[in-house]
Amino acid sequence: MPMKTRIEAAITQAVQAGQSHRAPLQLAQALHYATFPGGARIRPTICMSVALACGDDRPYLADAAAAALELMHCASLVHDDLPCFDDADFRRGKPSVHRAFSEPLAVLTGDSLIIMAFEQIAKAAVDDPGRGMQLLLTLSKRSGMPFGICAGQGWESEAKIDLSAYHQAKTGALFIAATQMGALAAGQEAEPWFELGARIGEAFQVADDLRDALYDEETLGKPAGQDNLHGRPNAVTQLGVQGAVSRLKDILGGAIASIPSCPGEAQLAQMVRAYAERLTPVMPARHPH
Amino acid sequence: MPMKTRIEAAITQAVQAGQSHRAPLQLAQALHYATFPGGARIRPTICMSVALACGDDRPYLADAAAAALELMHCASLVHDDLPCFDDADFRRGKPSVHRAFSEPLAVLTGDSLIIMAFEQIAKAAVDDPGRGMQLLLTLSKRSGMPFGICAGQGWESEAKIDLSAYHQAKTGALFIAATQMGALAAGQEAEPWFELGARIGEAFQVADDLRDALYDEETLGKPAGQDNLHGRPNAVTQLGVQGAVSRLKDILGGAIASIPSCPGEAQLAQMVRAYAERLTPVMPARHPH
Repeated sequence: MPMKTRIEAAITQAVQAGQSHRAPLQLAQALHYATFPGGARIRPTICMSVALACGDDRPYLADAAAAALELMHCASLVHDDLPCFDDADFRRGKPSVHRAFSEPLAVLTGDSLIIMAFEQIAKAAVDDPGRGMQLLLTLSKRSGMPFGICAGQGWESEAKIDLSAYHQAKTGALFIAATQMGALAAGQEAEPWFELGARIGEAFQVADDLRDALYDEETLGKPAGQDNLHGRPNAVTQLGVQGAVSRLKDILGGAIASIPSCPGEAQLAQMVRAYAERLTPVMPARHPH
Repeated sequence: MPMKTRIEAAITQAVQAGQSHRAPLQLAQALHYATFPGGARIRPTICMSVALACGDDRPYLADAAAAALELMHCASLVHDDLPCFDDADFRRGKPSVHRAFSEPLAVLTGDSLIIMAFEQIAKAAVDDPGRGMQLLLTLSKRSGMPFGICAGQGWESEAKIDLSAYHQAKTGALFIAATQMGALAAGQEAEPWFELGARIGEAFQVADDLRDALYDEETLGKPAGQDNLHGRPNAVTQLGVQGAVSRLKDILGGAIASIPSCPGEAQLAQMVRAYAERLTPVMPARHPH
């Protein structure tokens, strides 16, 4: 089965487990709306690529880990779009969850997706609770406080930001979880996979900063120029456009160099190279540079 | 160690694990604010009482389960108080989290507490992942969709409510989790403990309905008359005050009768009787009845 199909099947299964004819219909619909159609499914793709590179001897654990990462990511998007945060009317080219349903249902959708992420792993790991518990520990550490994506978002309420802690938590955390959970699902140690995840995370942060600064709302499928608008730190503000592009290439080179020795090392390097090409933004003709 | 002290210690440990000098300070403070000083800590008390009644052979698992239940409960209170739900300015006699901090921090506080609930169990269960996984499955089932407290809250957005599903999910779910997780922490099956949790949950729902209808804001420490205001179903509206009081006594009698045979059966029955007395509201002198 192609990896993309496998990932969609795993997410579909997780979201269907949250449905029942005795569940509130709108919330059930909102869970599906928030997760389909997906974006690039980058975190689950990285997770599954690492699991495959490590032998993927328990595919059901890799499936659950990949789905859990995407559910957690979607939860963070739904909550970040709320009026009290970005107040975004659109996400992935369609109305955001609080616009399509309601604000209460958007809060509950995020909460439910967070819980489903943990549940999905716990269900898959009943026959291998040792590995399952390591997966759950990694997911929780990279999602909550003090170092997960909640912490990353929390930094935006501080008058003085610890920039490195902010970036590693806000964007890096789920990429670190992705590489580490891929390794754990396949029975490998998590620690050697920290650096690959951290560097991919940095690369995405820089690429996101570039897109936010260079693209318009239609291309992004969400409001543009949000960082400037909300006064958030941004690599383009700090380094300029060309500086940020060079930075992106350096980081991705470092990511490839950091891949631990494993059976699928070469393929994994290939995947990172493919992301590098996709991440480097095409300069819009009307860019002032 | 008295049970109350043990519960406070377990919750303190969980909340401290969310702190770091490299974490955003306000969110870290909000996590503490949302969990201390606590209310009656009823869910952890029930969980620990059941664990003790079953022999409590892994006290660290009972501690983690009890703390996790309280974190999940506090998360639901913080999100329920948000402007888009109850818009409550006060909780437990002090400003609600979004009033004391901000709305973004209240959303993140709830999210972080949910994640910490799972993390706390995963950390405690590293040496006993089999029991740990059962605890996590029970916690997720009773918190998320389609049957947990998120589902319960989700029913309030439906035009037509399945009343029995609504009550079991909204109030019952975490009480069912409490009795079942207490048994699981002590190595017992969860299933026989379903009914005790469900009945205690029903009793609390009826008691809460009575308090909401009979007491004023000062006595409650939160806005009164909320059910009437939001058009929510309420036992007092359906049965009248005396009818609801009789109903409460019947339910608690059933709860005691449902306690599975275990070493601490008699003490557990005593605990439920003590709750019965505390739950039955003292009629305010100025009540129109």
